[in-house]
Amino acid sequence: MREATTRDRVSSLLTASGRSDVPPFMVMDVMAAAARIEAAGGHVIHMEVGQPAASAPKPAIAAAQAALLDGRIDYTSALGIPSLRARIARHYRDTYGCAVDAERIIVTTGSSGGFILAFLAMFEPGDRVAVTVPGYPPYRHILTALGCEPVLIETSGDTRHALTGEALLEAHRKAPLKGVLVGSPANPTGTMMSREALSSLMAAADSAGIRFISDEIYHGLDYAFPAVTAAELSPNALVINSFSKYFCMTGWRVGWMVVPEMLVRPIERLQQNLSISVPTLSQIAAEAAFEGREEMEAIKRGYQENRRILIEGLPKAGLTKFLPADGAFYLYADVSDFTSDSFAFASEMLEKAHVAATPGVDFDPIHGRAFIRFSYARSAADMQEAVARIAHWLK
Amino acid sequence: MREATTRDRVSSLLTASGRSDVPPFMVMDVMAAAARIEAAGGHVIHMEVGQPAASAPKPAIAAAQAALLDGRIDYTSALGIPSLRARIARHYRDTYGCAVDAERIIVTTGSSGGFILAFLAMFEPGDRVAVTVPGYPPYRHILTALGCEPVLIETSGDTRHALTGEALLEAHRKAPLKGVLVGSPANPTGTMMSREALSSLMAAADSAGIRFISDEIYHGLDYAFPAVTAAELSPNALVINSFSKYFCMTGWRVGWMVVPEMLVRPIERLQQNLSISVPTLSQIAAEAAFEGREEMEAIKRGYQENRRILIEGLPKAGLTKFLPADGAFYLYADVSDFTSDSFAFASEMLEKAHVAATPGVDFDPIHGRAFIRFSYARSAADMQEAVARIAHWLK
Repeated sequence: MREATTRDRVSSLLTASGRSDVPPFMVMDVMAAAARIEAAGGHVIHMEVGQPAASAPKPAIAAAQAALLDGRIDYTSALGIPSLRARIARHYRDTYGCAVDAERIIVTTGSSGGFILAFLAMFEPGDRVAVTVPGYPPYRHILTALGCEPVLIETSGDTRHALTGEALLEAHRKAPLKGVLVGSPANPTGTMMSREALSSLMAAADSAGIRFISDEIYHGLDYAFPAVTAAELSPNALVINSFSKYFCMTGWRVGWMVVPEMLVRPIERLQQNLSISVPTLSQIAAEAAFEGREEMEAIKRGYQENRRILIEGLPKAGLTKFLPADGAFYLYADVSDFTSDSFAFASEMLEKAHVAATPGVDFDPIHGRAFIRFSYARSAADMQEAVARIAHWLK
Repeated sequence: MREATTRDRVSSLLTASGRSDVPPFMVMDVMAAAARIEAAGGHVIHMEVGQPAASAPKPAIAAAQAALLDGRIDYTSALGIPSLRARIARHYRDTYGCAVDAERIIVTTGSSGGFILAFLAMFEPGDRVAVTVPGYPPYRHILTALGCEPVLIETSGDTRHALTGEALLEAHRKAPLKGVLVGSPANPTGTMMSREALSSLMAAADSAGIRFISDEIYHGLDYAFPAVTAAELSPNALVINSFSKYFCMTGWRVGWMVVPEMLVRPIERLQQNLSISVPTLSQIAAEAAFEGREEMEAIKRGYQENRRILIEGLPKAGLTKFLPADGAFYLYADVSDFTSDSFAFASEMLEKAHVAATPGVDFDPIHGRAFIRFSYARSAADMQEAVARIAHWLK
């Protein structure tokens, strides 16, 4: 073995680890290009960003203001403020008619914090965990960063882009899976799993000893039919949720999990070490957010109107193929009639029509070049203008 | 190979991963016992908790209030709000006379978020990373959770409990190290590294291609001599800091890193995926916190007075052996003259004298049974009362 040279040494000091080599989001390039157009005086319709245009509910903001007047914003216990955990448990009773013990609720730093804790607590390094494509890219990238192997399972329009028990077990037979993660309503597709689809997938996972994680961050934003929580179907499911979407609290970074009883203590110890606790002001605001449901329902009605405008308008504008926009605030359109490179398509749409959307390659390394994602979380006027601009551009 | 039974399957669904099996903090038991005493009407002096008694600086609170009036609290860019990054860079110029490019500043969700990003970006699974004992337990536990191997190096009073270059290289010769992490002022010892000690350790690390991480969370709280930042000594050092301690912003969960230039992009991608962004309100408050330095200096003078009371009072009370209380707000006392089990000692001190402190076993699996940590972040009156109670109890 030769001695390390100075160059080797310096380069080993400077290079990043292999596991930090996650791909960047292509949407960042879209956003940078949009910013350039706006700097030059152009008016861009933003349909690329996955965050609500509205503010947190008024009671949430008022609670944060009151806490600030009070002064000290200390660490909380690692599992979260007890009254917030109790309030979330009540939410399951009120919304789903489902009893969840507050002891099983763990407050997290956004759903992002939940994924890290869940993956660390449930999986060993090297464990294979199934995720669907198209899907939210951090699922794959967080798993990889934490030493797990994401196993991509393609979904299709035949099942509303829901993962089926058969497809899960088929992948499991090829090489054993330790877990599976699905989201409904889903990002980027906006599709939802029916109660039957979710139950049957969970039963399949259970039969094979595959741990089940349900990302329910878009719950509350369901238009086609009511979303079903995995917490109702099995005490072994781990549910991840957040105040970011329905409650419009993205920048507050506060979410929660419902975890199997046996994981409460292990996750508590992980959170003590990895985070100490979740941002206190955000927890206080989150608890009060539940008092702002009327406000949030009005915002949801706005999304419903936006959805109607797009579902009616995009086909007339020329974009006729898209998945069922069941929930969330996304519409996933197949643009393969126009392009074999949706990134180029999105770039041109931005340049020519000043409408920003996200290329599918961010969500789907396999078929993403055929799709773009529209987010419809902004105003109805923006949606109408977007449809008109796309129609004009495609003609 | 036998078939998995139902019992195996269910147990595999319910048990936690091996890597989540981190030890709980013994201080939690102390805190629970203190709460029981208080519930029964007792008055406990709290010297167990590592957080300031004061609030965030007034300008920080005012900035958060203004942002709330304004409404939307969106995601920020993954590296942090640009003006905050620039303000932190200015802090290096103002405080240390050291030029740090704002591009190398990364805002994090507390120092906790910084450790996760730093370890993931710098180390591969299996990499050996040196940490000192006694030391902050999450160093070891986060490394383990992320698949790295913490290598414990004991420090001694001869070097003010600073790790030396010789000790580092000796450990490296036994089995190669990829990184080393030290803190100054240190938790739990309160000791500090001199400029010479830090320079010589960093030079040793550099000579062996060992990456250097400097935890500077207690900077600003230096009494014996001015703390030196590793950022001044090498562009390859990774510095971790936080608004939690000097700026009294624990529950806000906001900190920062200074990272080698080559790690900016990899860490940006990790943060995009692992956190999306850092709590927005906390970032806004953090930027304004720098305008509250006078307030914070007054609080620091309070810690200095507390330190004086303990350094003078504890020996008279019977606790004569402790490490140099150079900085932070900790005093680490050797109680081996009284006990071979500092947890039992702390429990009895709480029960009999109603003074809560943290047993050393939380910080040092090797010699922790000989030590307890006192935190002196509360009032001078509390410190005087604590000394009096301990004196009475030990007599």
